[in-house]
Amino acid sequence: MAECYDIVIVGAGPVGLMLSACLLRLGPYKIKHIDQRPGPTETGRASGIQGRTLDVLQNLDLKRAIMSYNPGRIYEVAFWDACKDGPGIQRTGTAKSYPDYIDTRHPFSTIIHQGRIEKVFLDDLRERGVEIERTWTIAGFRKDPCGEDSDHPLVVDLVSVDGTKRSTVRTKYLFGADGARSRVRDLLRVPMLSKDPTVHVWSVIDGVVKSDFPDIQIKCTVHSSKGSAMIIPHGNNRVRIYVQLFPKNGQEPLAFATVPKIQQAANEILAPYTVDWVMVEWHSAYRIGQGLAARYSLDERVFIGGDACHTHSPKAGQGMNYGFLDAHNLAWKLHLVEAGFLRRSLLKTYEGERKLVAAKLIEFDATYANLFSSHQPVNGNNVAPSSEFVQVFKQNSLLTSGYGVEYPVNSLTWPSTASSTNTTALRPGHSLPTATVTRVIDAHPVYLEQEIPFNGSYRIYIFAGKPITTSKAILDLADHLQAKSSIFRRYQRKDIDTSYDGRHNPHFPFFTFSVVFHAPRSTIEIQERLPYFFTCYRHHVYADDRGSSRGGETAERNAHLKMGFDAETGGIVVVRPDGYVGCILELTDGRASASALNKYFEAIVPLTEHDVVAPKL
Amino acid sequence: MAECYDIVIVGAGPVGLMLSACLLRLGPYKIKHIDQRPGPTETGRASGIQGRTLDVLQNLDLKRAIMSYNPGRIYEVAFWDACKDGPGIQRTGTAKSYPDYIDTRHPFSTIIHQGRIEKVFLDDLRERGVEIERTWTIAGFRKDPCGEDSDHPLVVDLVSVDGTKRSTVRTKYLFGADGARSRVRDLLRVPMLSKDPTVHVWSVIDGVVKSDFPDIQIKCTVHSSKGSAMIIPHGNNRVRIYVQLFPKNGQEPLAFATVPKIQQAANEILAPYTVDWVMVEWHSAYRIGQGLAARYSLDERVFIGGDACHTHSPKAGQGMNYGFLDAHNLAWKLHLVEAGFLRRSLLKTYEGERKLVAAKLIEFDATYANLFSSHQPVNGNNVAPSSEFVQVFKQNSLLTSGYGVEYPVNSLTWPSTASSTNTTALRPGHSLPTATVTRVIDAHPVYLEQEIPFNGSYRIYIFAGKPITTSKAILDLADHLQAKSSIFRRYQRKDIDTSYDGRHNPHFPFFTFSVVFHAPRSTIEIQERLPYFFTCYRHHVYADDRGSSRGGETAERNAHLKMGFDAETGGIVVVRPDGYVGCILELTDGRASASALNKYFEAIVPLTEHDVVAPKL
Repeated sequence: MAECYDIVIVGAGPVGLMLSACLLRLGPYKIKHIDQRPGPTETGRASGIQGRTLDVLQNLDLKRAIMSYNPGRIYEVAFWDACKDGPGIQRTGTAKSYPDYIDTRHPFSTIIHQGRIEKVFLDDLRERGVEIERTWTIAGFRKDPCGEDSDHPLVVDLVSVDGTKRSTVRTKYLFGADGARSRVRDLLRVPMLSKDPTVHVWSVIDGVVKSDFPDIQIKCTVHSSKGSAMIIPHGNNRVRIYVQLFPKNGQEPLAFATVPKIQQAANEILAPYTVDWVMVEWHSAYRIGQGLAARYSLDERVFIGGDACHTHSPKAGQGMNYGFLDAHNLAWKLHLVEAGFLRRSLLKTYEGERKLVAAKLIEFDATYANLFSSHQPVNGNNVAPSSEFVQVFKQNSLLTSGYGVEYPVNSLTWPSTASSTNTTALRPGHSLPTATVTRVIDAHPVYLEQEIPFNGSYRIYIFAGKPITTSKAILDLADHLQAKSSIFRRYQRKDIDTSYDGRHNPHFPFFTFSVVFHAPRSTIEIQERLPYFFTCYRHHVYADDRGSSRGGETAERNAHLKMGFDAETGGIVVVRPDGYVGCILELTDGRASASALNKYFEAIVPLTEHDVVAPKL
Repeated sequence: MAECYDIVIVGAGPVGLMLSACLLRLGPYKIKHIDQRPGPTETGRASGIQGRTLDVLQNLDLKRAIMSYNPGRIYEVAFWDACKDGPGIQRTGTAKSYPDYIDTRHPFSTIIHQGRIEKVFLDDLRERGVEIERTWTIAGFRKDPCGEDSDHPLVVDLVSVDGTKRSTVRTKYLFGADGARSRVRDLLRVPMLSKDPTVHVWSVIDGVVKSDFPDIQIKCTVHSSKGSAMIIPHGNNRVRIYVQLFPKNGQEPLAFATVPKIQQAANEILAPYTVDWVMVEWHSAYRIGQGLAARYSLDERVFIGGDACHTHSPKAGQGMNYGFLDAHNLAWKLHLVEAGFLRRSLLKTYEGERKLVAAKLIEFDATYANLFSSHQPVNGNNVAPSSEFVQVFKQNSLLTSGYGVEYPVNSLTWPSTASSTNTTALRPGHSLPTATVTRVIDAHPVYLEQEIPFNGSYRIYIFAGKPITTSKAILDLADHLQAKSSIFRRYQRKDIDTSYDGRHNPHFPFFTFSVVFHAPRSTIEIQERLPYFFTCYRHHVYADDRGSSRGGETAERNAHLKMGFDAETGGIVVVRPDGYVGCILELTDGRASASALNKYFEAIVPLTEHDVVAPKL
């Protein structure tokens, strides 16, 4: 008998590791995680973690481990161009990486090489009992003849890289996170669609330098008459430099791009400044090309993610971020299907959501990378259109920060009925805006959007406005949530868990309710103010009695107004387990609100007996 | 031959551990660190870390380890009193632990039991090669007959607790951090002076509770008709409750205060609310008494610190904090004397500074603890004067936060000549106010007061105002700092270290210069703006181009104004290695500023050959 798993994950780079880490937070899943490499990445490779991704890592409780490495932080970008009159380069401008209009706790890119990122995940998986099985790859897979009636409908053949060992396992799901040359994608016969036939060759080098270049600790884009370069400070006195190279036709980039050649090219581009390498930690070279997989899944049993689905230039620092969020998007959906709360067909939204956003990224990247790569310099004249480049950079800050991602309307994401002109307001398909509120039971100022860990629960925030205005609506809401016909009643535990450990999920594994009053903390008496149903969420009752945390137009606004709610009458927002807004509802009539919540969830829970799997948790 | 040490530390509670941790950051000191207990504290005991102490721990790079335990945080205090009409208790008010006028990054008390605190330090010491030698105590010490001419003028006799082993070592210094019943203090024949003969008996219990008391997660002071109590949330669902008890005359508190008796008393005080203990982790009982050691030192060779010097009630959460800062105060002075930069006689300032602040604490504590401890309830009438208690609590927030500490004028602390009416301004003898500025080389927003780690260096901040206004003064300052007669020239390295590792101390082990311009970051070109001397501190050049970080009256002020400097002409502040302001100088005439700096340091460096020890570093 072949051993049975919940999932087989092929590839233990950041994307595969993210899926394992997410699933292990959701249930006692049995994971077979293989990688063809003999060991993890030691250094180099992907390095940029954008703001939204850091939010997600924080929600997984992995941010502290990453920040303990004292990574680089990019707050500003400097633009350098060829001097107009004479040789050399000059700074022509600077810009914030995260302009003030981006609503984030993390207004910077975090720079840490892939070796450290993988280590953070590997340590986490090890604590949770999963070890990567290395020097193994996938040979093939097939469906069980019984199909979906089988508990483990996939049969996967594995083979050691040296071909000496073979193994066959059965699994519910298969995930290919095996990179740009994905074997899983090949087995699925999914073609990669190319965006742009233009090919530029770039090299990259990491290490310690001595340099008189004044912006060596700031992210720089350099367009000189000798070619283009990009500087990325990595923290702890490490720096990465990307340099455009011009090999002859047909020459392999990596063979061409020796360390001395990269160093020489960098010095030519940065002249009159010099860069001396005290230590070189890593180098590589590659052709830039944009590609998008035609499909992300086979029958919602086999999935691919990360570079296996989308390839683009590393310049915008997006690859690992999109890959992480692929895995994050898939994990909670797989979990809720397996737990019997989500209908299986909604696994199609993985491709529906993630392919759409990857396509947008690739569109931007094609323009950006093309503008970045100057053409072969002719007679010392640089033809890189730098001002257009700066414009494209600035216009896409929201996209590259991760907060610009918008999921399309589907069963999980309802269109908004409101028409707020407030730019910080809630928008379905977008991540929940930040809000600093005061937790009532202990008077802590907290980040509302981080209060519920990534645990597979839907997050239902009741912005309860002024207590006396909304008290009847909240009473009615609690009543109707508890009505016999309510979906919430159907999924409720038999024994309400009011312990500290049950604080996120006293009634249900699938929902957490939070109540945010627009009133000073000291005036909110939970026991007196709230019906019993909501008092079970006493760790999630908040006072919206602070201004919002970041400058610009949102300063001094309270969380209600920031979200687009009336500060007196409030409203309700349903947030998916991955932090994206699912739908926005009113709170004028508690019965109507309960009914709307029912409608939202009735549309996603399994319809038929066949679709329901016995809950595991 | 007896083995020789730089210092023998008796006692491995928080105070002794702090001294070891500090010294190991300052030099390769050879430390013998003993403790009479067979192992470290497991749980309970001291638990409150105040804001200023957390700053110090952050400066030692120990804050992250402490915060990784998810400790309790006290932002607010609730005051509960007996109901006026009828039985039971009611909340009569709340107050912020750290009112807005307290200038801090950490407006909360951090609550974590002593077992975890000791573990953080023990892990740190282990990494640095020091292990505590346990079940050893001190039997006696004597001076070497050669006295100060000896390299190691103290001879210390050690004995194992069971009396089976003896050892004699030689040392330069001896530090007694051996608690309220200090053996070292006894050997010094230093009497404890008592403040107040009133004796109250209190008990304390830690654990996990189930309770309907609404403020169980907030710090509460409770004065009921049945006695007084205090509730301290410890984080992670743990709580500590202090309960006043009334044993018969002569009965030992700990024998009287059984767990059921403490629990019953707590429930009587908190009625009609109830507290059920799911788990009890620790309990204790003690008499409150205030005491202050008559002396802190013998001949600046033997020192005592922490509870060995000052005892008071645990109610204000100060004991460990004052002990930590005793050790912190002593460490850098010992180091600079040993390194040949500080005259030996200035070791007297340890007692001069720390005894003065302990006396102030004890004065407050006597009033506070007395008001807290109600007298034996008579006929159900509580006589605790709660409103006076609240007033004393609020008036002393600055003191209890740690930011109210003021060191007296001495050679290390010059009186201020300025007469700023600005309440956030620099004040000699006080800790450096917070300031968020932008580091020029990498555009990071940073906490200026944390930019230089605790490394024994004096921190000289040049608030350089408007670059064009101060450029001549800065040029002249650099010139005169480099003049042959300058003390800075005398202590300068032969080879200037401009490497990343040397970034805090390119010229000297004893000074770090920082330059803060009042100008936007992008306009500051370090190479062009600064003379060569200051370009060596490129990691410490900042732009004062942000508002200050905390609300209230200081918001929107820039760092120059906050410090009390003119935003155009600036000024200079010398900060001691422990973060306290030493002196404040003008920057109108660079030569005069250099001369004033010389004068400050000439008054503290060794005068005679005898006083100088060959620098170790």
